[in-house]
Amino acid sequence: MLDYMLEESTVNQSNVDIYNKYTPYLVAVDCIIFGFIEGEVKLLIIKRVMNPCKGSWSLMGGFVSPEESMDEAANRILYDLTGLKDLYMTQLYTHGDLGRDPGARVISTSYYSLIKIQDIDPDHTMISNARWCPINELPELIFDHSKMVEMALDSLRHEAHRKPIGFELLPPKFTIPQLQSLYEAIYQQKIDKRNFRKSILKMNLLDQLEEKDKENSRKGAWLYCFNEEKYKELLRQGFFFNIPV
Amino acid sequence: MLDYMLEESTVNQSNVDIYNKYTPYLVAVDCIIFGFIEGEVKLLIIKRVMNPCKGSWSLMGGFVSPEESMDEAANRILYDLTGLKDLYMTQLYTHGDLGRDPGARVISTSYYSLIKIQDIDPDHTMISNARWCPINELPELIFDHSKMVEMALDSLRHEAHRKPIGFELLPPKFTIPQLQSLYEAIYQQKIDKRNFRKSILKMNLLDQLEEKDKENSRKGAWLYCFNEEKYKELLRQGFFFNIPV
Repeated sequence: MLDYMLEESTVNQSNVDIYNKYTPYLVAVDCIIFGFIEGEVKLLIIKRVMNPCKGSWSLMGGFVSPEESMDEAANRILYDLTGLKDLYMTQLYTHGDLGRDPGARVISTSYYSLIKIQDIDPDHTMISNARWCPINELPELIFDHSKMVEMALDSLRHEAHRKPIGFELLPPKFTIPQLQSLYEAIYQQKIDKRNFRKSILKMNLLDQLEEKDKENSRKGAWLYCFNEEKYKELLRQGFFFNIPV
Repeated sequence: MLDYMLEESTVNQSNVDIYNKYTPYLVAVDCIIFGFIEGEVKLLIIKRVMNPCKGSWSLMGGFVSPEESMDEAANRILYDLTGLKDLYMTQLYTHGDLGRDPGARVISTSYYSLIKIQDIDPDHTMISNARWCPINELPELIFDHSKMVEMALDSLRHEAHRKPIGFELLPPKFTIPQLQSLYEAIYQQKIDKRNFRKSILKMNLLDQLEEKDKENSRKGAWLYCFNEEKYKELLRQGFFFNIPV
């Protein structure tokens, strides 16, 4: 019998009676947080301090409370952990298999976000308990969290060469070699330097600044910033962002 | 306080105690079912027979029961309504806003599926209560169901020209004009006949049969079928499906 098509005889009850016939479950959100540092894409993970699986590596997550939407819950968890607001965040997938959490029936929706690591205050309390782990050196994670990360990486790789989301992982001012090293880290492959530079600059989305980064060479490399306004304008004109990787 | 990082003092309780601190909610799935008939993409909707919103148009949905996963719940609901199994089905998005269902806090995950309308047994009990409604003539739907449909249409349009999912909506044997009319219905725009025919046949994914469809012209149009095996083989070789619309 389908829930929305109950027989007439059973529907002449109050709303509460009808809804009360069904079993409720805990609803959680789990946050997949990527950052880019030291030439590597890294995932923010924590050591779980509650049972089951106390002491194991885990994504940051939490239960949705009665006064917040799912998105609000994800933002709260992200904020509590990093101290940052208004981050790039996307809902990814809802995991509802039986027994996925040995503690109770928990439905969990994964969200993935991209953050500029250097924006985090290193003295922020929660962050000191977390670890940035390179995506190709991840430990085993609890429950289905490894699957969640895999799906997030698929999504990141699917999106990063068609949408300018990579800039979310870089500081506001960056060099072309830095940008290239980000894309190499996302796609785990070497990219031809000249081609990359050419296709990036051809899109006309980067503004060259009057500053150089001299950390990596005496000659220095020009700093650029991503021009969001220009991107929006080009989008309206039917332009497609595309980085060939 | 973050749920996975509770203070040590609170975690030396049994699992059940910890999980019991949180509020559970009802979890539902809603099915967005598209079919293609009479040259139009149509959505399968039902009249809701329970309160709240009894008598209003609604997607087909139901609550997830304790013995099934989310995917199983979606498949069950799809089967109960259509009598069909193993349909194309994709999880789309989870809606968890406060008050989205006036009856109770319900978290609902939408799934969209594509079905061959002619596979449905017209005597199947449930289907007689449902209606196939053209996507550009949809009535107001309950709750956030219109939003769910909008997201599903976006996804269908995003995918249909890059993946051969359109064939899920056609009978196993179809003509090129039928295929073109499907794409015109999905994208709600006229497509150039010669270009369409050329780009479809160039992909080498259709097998021409020794039969003609003579319903629409005396001369008739050759029937084709989609060669799934060939598609998989080409995929392995790095081929990309692409229909220019």
